[in-house]
Amino acid sequence: MPSRKKTSRTTRRRTPKTDRSDLRVGLVGTGFMGRAHANAWRSAGTFFDLPRPLVMQAASGIREGQSREFAAQWGWNSSTADWRSLVASDDIDLVDVCTPNHLHAEMSIAAFEAGKHVACEKPLAGTLGEARAMRDAAKKAARRDVRSFVWFNYRRVPALAYAHRLVRSGRVGRIFHVRASYLQDWGHPDTPMAWRFDAKKAGSGAHGDLNAHIIDLARFLTGDEVSEVVGSVEETFVKRREIAEEARATIKGGGAGKGGKRRTGRSTVDDAVHFLARFKAGAIGSFEATRMATGNLNRNTIEINGELGSFKFDFERMNELQWWDHTLEPGLRGWSRIMCTDADAHPYAHAYWPAAHGLGYEHGFVSQVADIDRILAGGEPEVPMPDFADAYETQRVLEAALLSARNRTPIPMSQVK
Amino acid sequence: MPSRKKTSRTTRRRTPKTDRSDLRVGLVGTGFMGRAHANAWRSAGTFFDLPRPLVMQAASGIREGQSREFAAQWGWNSSTADWRSLVASDDIDLVDVCTPNHLHAEMSIAAFEAGKHVACEKPLAGTLGEARAMRDAAKKAARRDVRSFVWFNYRRVPALAYAHRLVRSGRVGRIFHVRASYLQDWGHPDTPMAWRFDAKKAGSGAHGDLNAHIIDLARFLTGDEVSEVVGSVEETFVKRREIAEEARATIKGGGAGKGGKRRTGRSTVDDAVHFLARFKAGAIGSFEATRMATGNLNRNTIEINGELGSFKFDFERMNELQWWDHTLEPGLRGWSRIMCTDADAHPYAHAYWPAAHGLGYEHGFVSQVADIDRILAGGEPEVPMPDFADAYETQRVLEAALLSARNRTPIPMSQVK
Amino acid sequence: MPSRKKTSRTTRRRTPKTDRSDLRVGLVGTGFMGRAHANAWRSAGTFFDLPRPLVMQAASGIREGQSREFAAQWGWNSSTADWRSLVASDDIDLVDVCTPNHLHAEMSIAAFEAGKHVACEKPLAGTLGEARAMRDAAKKAARRDVRSFVWFNYRRVPALAYAHRLVRSGRVGRIFHVRASYLQDWGHPDTPMAWRFDAKKAGSGAHGDLNAHIIDLARFLTGDEVSEVVGSVEETFVKRREIAEEARATIKGGGAGKGGKRRTGRSTVDDAVHFLARFKAGAIGSFEATRMATGNLNRNTIEINGELGSFKFDFERMNELQWWDHTLEPGLRGWSRIMCTDADAHPYAHAYWPAAHGLGYEHGFVSQVADIDRILAGGEPEVPMPDFADAYETQRVLEAALLSARNRTPIPMSQVK
Amino acid sequence: MPSRKKTSRTTRRRTPKTDRSDLRVGLVGTGFMGRAHANAWRSAGTFFDLPRPLVMQAASGIREGQSREFAAQWGWNSSTADWRSLVASDDIDLVDVCTPNHLHAEMSIAAFEAGKHVACEKPLAGTLGEARAMRDAAKKAARRDVRSFVWFNYRRVPALAYAHRLVRSGRVGRIFHVRASYLQDWGHPDTPMAWRFDAKKAGSGAHGDLNAHIIDLARFLTGDEVSEVVGSVEETFVKRREIAEEARATIKGGGAGKGGKRRTGRSTVDDAVHFLARFKAGAIGSFEATRMATGNLNRNTIEINGELGSFKFDFERMNELQWWDHTLEPGLRGWSRIMCTDADAHPYAHAYWPAAHGLGYEHGFVSQVADIDRILAGGEPEVPMPDFADAYETQRVLEAALLSARNRTPIPMSQVK
Repeated sequence: MPSRKKTSRTTRRRTPKTDRSDLRVGLVGTGFMGRAHANAWRSAGTFFDLPRPLVMQAASGIREGQSREFAAQWGWNSSTADWRSLVASDDIDLVDVCTPNHLHAEMSIAAFEAGKHVACEKPLAGTLGEARAMRDAAKKAARRDVRSFVWFNYRRVPALAYAHRLVRSGRVGRIFHVRASYLQDWGHPDTPMAWRFDAKKAGSGAHGDLNAHIIDLARFLTGDEVSEVVGSVEETFVKRREIAEEARATIKGGGAGKGGKRRTGRSTVDDAVHFLARFKAGAIGSFEATRMATGNLNRNTIEINGELGSFKFDFERMNELQWWDHTLEPGLRGWSRIMCTDADAHPYAHAYWPAAHGLGYEHGFVSQVADIDRILAGGEPEVPMPDFADAYETQRVLEAALLSARNRTPIPMSQVK
Repeated sequence: MPSRKKTSRTTRRRTPKTDRSDLRVGLVGTGFMGRAHANAWRSAGTFFDLPRPLVMQAASGIREGQSREFAAQWGWNSSTADWRSLVASDDIDLVDVCTPNHLHAEMSIAAFEAGKHVACEKPLAGTLGEARAMRDAAKKAARRDVRSFVWFNYRRVPALAYAHRLVRSGRVGRIFHVRASYLQDWGHPDTPMAWRFDAKKAGSGAHGDLNAHIIDLARFLTGDEVSEVVGSVEETFVKRREIAEEARATIKGGGAGKGGKRRTGRSTVDDAVHFLARFKAGAIGSFEATRMATGNLNRNTIEINGELGSFKFDFERMNELQWWDHTLEPGLRGWSRIMCTDADAHPYAHAYWPAAHGLGYEHGFVSQVADIDRILAGGEPEVPMPDFADAYETQRVLEAALLSARNRTPIPMSQVK
Repeated sequence: MPSRKKTSRTTRRRTPKTDRSDLRVGLVGTGFMGRAHANAWRSAGTFFDLPRPLVMQAASGIREGQSREFAAQWGWNSSTADWRSLVASDDIDLVDVCTPNHLHAEMSIAAFEAGKHVACEKPLAGTLGEARAMRDAAKKAARRDVRSFVWFNYRRVPALAYAHRLVRSGRVGRIFHVRASYLQDWGHPDTPMAWRFDAKKAGSGAHGDLNAHIIDLARFLTGDEVSEVVGSVEETFVKRREIAEEARATIKGGGAGKGGKRRTGRSTVDDAVHFLARFKAGAIGSFEATRMATGNLNRNTIEINGELGSFKFDFERMNELQWWDHTLEPGLRGWSRIMCTDADAHPYAHAYWPAAHGLGYEHGFVSQVADIDRILAGGEPEVPMPDFADAYETQRVLEAALLSARNRTPIPMSQVK
Repeated sequence: MPSRKKTSRTTRRRTPKTDRSDLRVGLVGTGFMGRAHANAWRSAGTFFDLPRPLVMQAASGIREGQSREFAAQWGWNSSTADWRSLVASDDIDLVDVCTPNHLHAEMSIAAFEAGKHVACEKPLAGTLGEARAMRDAAKKAARRDVRSFVWFNYRRVPALAYAHRLVRSGRVGRIFHVRASYLQDWGHPDTPMAWRFDAKKAGSGAHGDLNAHIIDLARFLTGDEVSEVVGSVEETFVKRREIAEEARATIKGGGAGKGGKRRTGRSTVDDAVHFLARFKAGAIGSFEATRMATGNLNRNTIEINGELGSFKFDFERMNELQWWDHTLEPGLRGWSRIMCTDADAHPYAHAYWPAAHGLGYEHGFVSQVADIDRILAGGEPEVPMPDFADAYETQRVLEAALLSARNRTPIPMSQVK
């Protein structure tokens, strides 16, 4: 819960076991993810009993006015359009980076250098090189007890956190298959040109946005690592998109339509990337990210088949885990729809509402804030928290998949440093 | 499999333990149900190893030509338009009655009197009085080892037969709720007038057709009996229906439309009957039958909630049983979709195809034929087989529901003899 | 968003079209519902652009300390254990009543008398008499522009708000069936004795708690009123419940267990109430509320079948509406799972997250706060908002169902004043 | 319906437009598929009005006695253990080949040479070379009006036949994605060694058995062809399987277990093959076949996403098609569960039962027999019927996937002749 008074105290960098000091947060980025994060910072303290009181200290967007409005709406104590001043500020303990991917590295590294903890949006970076630099900076910062976090929010959906426990507890057994897809459909040919279709601004398309999530989930849920990308396909189905009348001024490279003709711009990002992989312990996996799967609004799905049990998850029904227990007597085996809302049994569920009073998209972020707070107080998260080193492994798989698609060859992970 | 040669043997009426003689069947009624039964008689021997070889001896419809065509198509050895001759024939052992409800009593009783086993379509009869006479005739016939059967085909859907076993084995425990509905939508206002909307020909509407099934299922699955109908509502939403041009000649009482006006006929059957009931052992139940539930083509559903477990069934997904095991550890409890197709574990599944190579509507009839054959050879059915006495109990509940709706009062079953 | 400064202004009672003054809220009741409401008051301003800034002025629980902690956790400016002082306070514009049902009348009426708007939890009251007094007090207060609201939160689940629009726009057509149930299972025999099983404290069991919701939904969605309760059944399956060791001191009437024996207390509320109804325009409806439907954690479901279309809703999948469009060409008709998360198309969806980034239980309350704020600024809610007169009609149906069950007779609504 | 008399007539090889002569069938292979085919030959005439009466002339298994029993059970007029005599017999018009894959070529080619039509099980052959020889033989035979058919039975599941029509009618539009998987789980490590795990006897594992089906479906449904296999992974998870005591005598190469130790045999077939592909018109596709997907008994699934619409199918719910119409107004778009059982609207549905009285696995075969009969009478099938040339294209894709997995490189289809 945001404190309602200004906080001024001697900044301590050490995180002792019993740190109960305020945790003062600065947010950089005020778009869709900025909203989701702001909501989480302001809500975690109401749902969870946090060891360190959260202070929403400052928010930084691109322009002054917009930053001010955002701060007012979400309850930040101050605002700025100058992220560097926010990062350098003495009254910030943690910088939350939720800007476009190509800005993650510069901002995160600056924050580490200023001695701040960093919580960065996924994917870790726009390129593997940047991600490596971020990982190294985080490693260096760790020597001063500065911590890094990455917003792989789906880990804290109760159904997936519970699936993680099922694997850890041995109920799934040896894993044969990982089947993950993240299907969206807003890349429909009717969707006009926008910055997201411009590789220079967006980094990548569906791949960085969506495969990042499911690669992280596969690693999180199996506890295993990809050993090789066996094959990959990358596709931009819609190569030119219409430039909406109002946007023509701001998008460069639009086709020079004369007279009444439509102007179009070139989409330089992937619409879909699909790849096959092997895991170290022997499982094989398939991954698909696309914005062109008409009818699938936000189908982040994963299914894992093991010798003793299997589970399936679909984010469009995020409160449910489908579970198959192969150790039951044959006639009673079935796919069991578990509502992962039991306060006593399912991770994070205790903090919110009674059984089957479902949670929504935002609560994964709220729960992640709670775990960040616990970690920074010297405690443990309910399920493993991704840091920059962890997210760098996901980035390597992203890179391997691109290399495989472009070089038309399998890519052992050992080739991707 | 129907034998393809004429059978002539001395007719024995006794059914000894080891009877392996041919079972010669005569069918009366060649409509939709006649087709379903014919298919079952001709297929049971291919799927099951039957103790008594089935002989499809004769089929009887209303007209000679149509009876002949039907017999040729489905493989009956002979045909007739005179059901009385079929019933009296020396080379028939069992008469299958699948004519309209108001004909069941006369035909069945005649068959018993001729010493034939009778397998009669549900509901047992058009009226409770007729049903009682049929029950009494069956009882009398039983003294001569003549048996009666009723085609409550859903009992032999593997998922429901398995649910029955779950209850019997104690896995459901004390039952609190029975929630049954049979929803169809072909009674839409656009549907023209037909004999099914004429009470004189059809007996009743949704009530006798659909509630009969779910009352039987509730009794079968719980092993309990209704003790009281607490309240009931009967409704004919569409009181007049258009008479299709081609049908005007044949339907009496059509409105005297002049000139270009549409002619309509009066629907005298219920479109829907819904009632609440108490069971002897303490459960409460709800039952709904309707032809006006737009969007529900054939949703025969039942859910039973017990102290130890619950199950749900929907005939539109007839190969599945939804099962909740309340004795599992809390986090793992869920509605489990069991595909009831495991040859080793699920009733009747062994006779057909490998796991999850699903069955269809017709297989309930095929399995019932197999059980009838076993019983008449002196053996046991896989799950209890309804006879006339059993079906009479269902008819009593149908009657109680109608009385409750019409008299606007609860009806204890003790009042319905 | 809660303002972070104390507000002191001249209280105006008129609600002019353009009221943009602060709306100062006082909450009475700090249990489960108190949490849900507090979350809504603090979050509405972050998600919605509210005409009147919300001020979380004061919260009142039973004890001082607990009230203080609650206020601190949820961001109320002050706390008290004296609800009368809160209601009387000059710096409160609206009193939110979320105490047990038997306290609603006294608190609401006191608030009206103090000139405050009242937002009261459902059911409106513990008895019909109290509900009537509340309705009358609200009517009187309305002359002074004081408004009443009732927290039938499910109306603002986007899927149900959208269903409401489908009916209003004529897409459902003449309605034949309303099929509503609210199934829970926490009344399992293992659940120990608690105040909720004591009629004096809880008023009723499943009936007031759950049937209240589905009666409101049926009225809201059909735009029609119940004309008669045709039959009803009320049951307490578990008549005595064990008194947990720690609770023995506080629960009266526990069985006098001697020595090592378990002590039990008598449950005096219904576990389940099921009733059948007729609606004025001709539809028939079934309603079932129970806490004994093992496996159903929170299945608030409703299905409405009309001449042109049908829909189904299940709160366990609250972001989805199942829709059947009977006007499509026959081959293409099906139950369509609409994710009601499209910002442009579905009510309330614009305020939250992108398509298929689902909402949870709490958001119905958040959206209701937004609509209350709009109404008190002189605007219109997105869908109709229940006031005390409206909730009184729901209470009459609750009463009729009880009368029908207890008197064993149909109850025309005209008999329930 | 099988004729019940012996047929002797001058064999005519021409198939004139109006051929109404008996179609005399000989079956080779009496295992699981032999049963499914026999059931289809004996049932097609009861459900469909066939132009050419079917005569079940002869069945051939491996041993005399077993062939005789099979023939008696399923109604074949004769039996033999000598398939060559069956193929050569003058009173056979069509040979149905449902033996293991490595026997298809020899038997089919012999049948063509004897002037018989051939209906062969899938995959067409055990190797691409054999498949090519079969295609060529079929082409040569076609000059004499001899026809070839392949049992890709899923094409005639009404839901998939209807999906095919939706694509053909333009309702799906440009296709972006094909997502197909055939998941089974009987390859579990507990499953003992059997001939199916021996590459010499079984040809391949999941690949030939399951990928053959989904490749055919993808080609059938899109009307497009694979242009390249981009990447592929093949895995045998369980390399050694226990030899059941009773099977030790018959399986070679069992591990030399000493004393009480378990003996194991080496599994030489794939447990899973997964590949990515591009289609000529630009779609990208993923294909997965496995026997190790614990919990998936028989999940033959395919989803196709197009610019105007998408559909999904899962054989475990074979009567349903999930359909997304992107041309509907936004708020009403959803995944629509169409029960493909409407006699007027859905292919093949008219032949069986009323709406939502579902079909089972076997009916795809029955409908295929009906279409074969129509074609051989000079008519048209309801949906395209695969012949050997068509099945050869599927075999080429199977081959390309194996080459891609083994050579670790993309395989353009032009490289697979």
